[in-house]
Amino acid sequence: MFAIKGDLIWTESPNRFRSMKDGYLVIDNGRVADITQQKPSLAVDDWSGHLIIPGLTDLHMHAPQYMFAGLFMDEELLDWLNNHTFPLEARYSDPGFAAKAYKALSEDLRKSPTTRAAVFGTIHADADIILVKALSESGIRGYAGKVNMNRNSPDCLIESEEESLRETERFLKEAEWGRIQPIITPRFIPSCTDSLMRKLAAFGLPIQSHISENRSEIGWVRELCPYASGYADAYDKLGLLTPDTIMAHAVWLEDEEMDLLGERGVHIAHSPSSNTNLSSGIAPARRFLDKGLRVGLATDVAGGSTLSMLRIVADAVQVSKLRYSLVDSSQRPLSLSEAFHMASKSSGFFPKTGSFEKGYAADAVVLPDEDISVLSGELSIEERLEQYIYRRAESCVAAKYVEGVKVWPL
Amino acid sequence: MFAIKGDLIWTESPNRFRSMKDGYLVIDNGRVADITQQKPSLAVDDWSGHLIIPGLTDLHMHAPQYMFAGLFMDEELLDWLNNHTFPLEARYSDPGFAAKAYKALSEDLRKSPTTRAAVFGTIHADADIILVKALSESGIRGYAGKVNMNRNSPDCLIESEEESLRETERFLKEAEWGRIQPIITPRFIPSCTDSLMRKLAAFGLPIQSHISENRSEIGWVRELCPYASGYADAYDKLGLLTPDTIMAHAVWLEDEEMDLLGERGVHIAHSPSSNTNLSSGIAPARRFLDKGLRVGLATDVAGGSTLSMLRIVADAVQVSKLRYSLVDSSQRPLSLSEAFHMASKSSGFFPKTGSFEKGYAADAVVLPDEDISVLSGELSIEERLEQYIYRRAESCVAAKYVEGVKVWPL
Repeated sequence: MFAIKGDLIWTESPNRFRSMKDGYLVIDNGRVADITQQKPSLAVDDWSGHLIIPGLTDLHMHAPQYMFAGLFMDEELLDWLNNHTFPLEARYSDPGFAAKAYKALSEDLRKSPTTRAAVFGTIHADADIILVKALSESGIRGYAGKVNMNRNSPDCLIESEEESLRETERFLKEAEWGRIQPIITPRFIPSCTDSLMRKLAAFGLPIQSHISENRSEIGWVRELCPYASGYADAYDKLGLLTPDTIMAHAVWLEDEEMDLLGERGVHIAHSPSSNTNLSSGIAPARRFLDKGLRVGLATDVAGGSTLSMLRIVADAVQVSKLRYSLVDSSQRPLSLSEAFHMASKSSGFFPKTGSFEKGYAADAVVLPDEDISVLSGELSIEERLEQYIYRRAESCVAAKYVEGVKVWPL
Repeated sequence: MFAIKGDLIWTESPNRFRSMKDGYLVIDNGRVADITQQKPSLAVDDWSGHLIIPGLTDLHMHAPQYMFAGLFMDEELLDWLNNHTFPLEARYSDPGFAAKAYKALSEDLRKSPTTRAAVFGTIHADADIILVKALSESGIRGYAGKVNMNRNSPDCLIESEEESLRETERFLKEAEWGRIQPIITPRFIPSCTDSLMRKLAAFGLPIQSHISENRSEIGWVRELCPYASGYADAYDKLGLLTPDTIMAHAVWLEDEEMDLLGERGVHIAHSPSSNTNLSSGIAPARRFLDKGLRVGLATDVAGGSTLSMLRIVADAVQVSKLRYSLVDSSQRPLSLSEAFHMASKSSGFFPKTGSFEKGYAADAVVLPDEDISVLSGELSIEERLEQYIYRRAESCVAAKYVEGVKVWPL
């Protein structure tokens, strides 16, 4: 047992922050045992004067794309995929390149506020095995998957159904699991035949994919799946909507599709930065909340250009304001606490993480928030967090703990 | 004469970047004398391997608000003004507070990519005199104004017409001008009587104010100025629309109002980050360009939370994509070069700045762009700039020159 001391701030429900000045986060066996202002008789990591937040969850990101984060942003989704993303992902057929690229990702991820993530690899099992190791070395916990693609993909980045299944099995068997767990990762309906999809669903593992990101994509899915009433129904008929499924984006879902995701218990990875960069639109986050859907936030690197989930918190608030002022004034913007809650407690995909409630995983991030402004000394803990999110979100964290283990600084 | 060496990138027209690998920017008497890949027989500041861009113009920002940048972002414009901004600006009646706050701004501005700015102070002439000194010490050049407010303002932040004019004159006389020049600064129509506005216009100096930021504000102006057909017409009838006038925002201008600003040669300060944060909307930047209006970009600190004009370049592109996908698909998004051009050559308010064309002011910013990604070595200069803008925009610059004088590092 030990404790971490600092200015603690977290959410239990979306509507408000909880905070404790000079609080001790008492950690027992990787879990939060207590929060108290009474000095405990334990070893203390003293971060007095710093903000300490729960670790954040990045519910959707593409590891191979980190190398080109912030590039090619003048294009929309389907052009961006075909002209840049697919050819660059093809380079991961070279394990040497993969090792170099995933090491860079791992080092940056270590210094980010992310403690949990659901991660796409590429179709290349060898590179994906390297990815699992790199993610594990970054100190975070999460899920990583080998991507499946057997149609509508360039020659440099396509596999047969048989290869796709065989390599998925090899990936599951050969990767060194541990902090990271496997997740089935069909890219999206346009890239996978119905037959492959059904066989992937039959693994009975968690699943991650994409849904309704862009209007052209939706029209395409309608052509590809004439048997379904829409994008969500197609996934449902293929057996992919489960309580352990993450679907990224959901920008353009119809009302009944949202209800279907709700019934199936699917986790939505809201990716505001990416949806902006690729001119996809603004997902109706307020509607998701009103319907009680399970929603978390995501960077969607490299549609999103940042690894920082704190930047994504600001982005989620900002796009919700634009949606409110330009699209639907009946859906009020997200408050900061709501967006922060979506990034910390997230959708529940990682149960009992993202809060300082007793029994939660002791994932904690110390922020270097000193001296942001001449007002610093007068601000509440909540105001300091707001100012940090808007002004310092891209900074390296001061320290990070995952299940009670300090993973940064080394 | 001397030269700065590095990977030069700039725009001459909005549609494309120009660049030169290992180029020498030859500077004579504070102006660009030449750009060449031939080593000149001159002293050289060697920034080989770094990107060098022209200095950027922040066409609209509120110096007193920098202390609370990134705070109170859950409110809309009029509440944000009344609940937070006005009471906090009132603190600048204390010159000691002003000195501390403006010193912090000055230090951060020095390390930002901004070389030119048009800056609002507060109503307090003594604090504004301190502001002029602090801006001058930051190394930038630009304009600063004492704010005028004689109606619809809280008791802590209001002046009579007579005081407002007398203190404006004192400010003009007592400030230590030099790198900074004076600009008349009526806050906006709701805060200034018609009589005060007319007398301010009669100074014959450059003018800065706000127009059509938010829909509630527009309704209010309509009530206050029944003699005018709209917001722009009201300013025009008061004599405030001149070729040396900057109007911030212009989010909700009618078509004929845009034309009026065009006829008068007014400079529009497009403030995408602030317009997002305050739920104001998205200004039709593409329409401004199509109509040939004079448009520059602005942080609008503290509606905007960043001092970095490079972050504003990304914001301008991003909101234009959302406007395209949600409001008007006939207005294509801004490209990166268009947004960069709006931040560098800007509206022309600072003539012959923001480019490396011969005869332009030698304002140059060196970016610390090394090692952004494993692709760095393979990227073009333009791609490196894009990646920097999306991923490192908030970083301190590596060096900054204003009219050929190195102002950072000291």
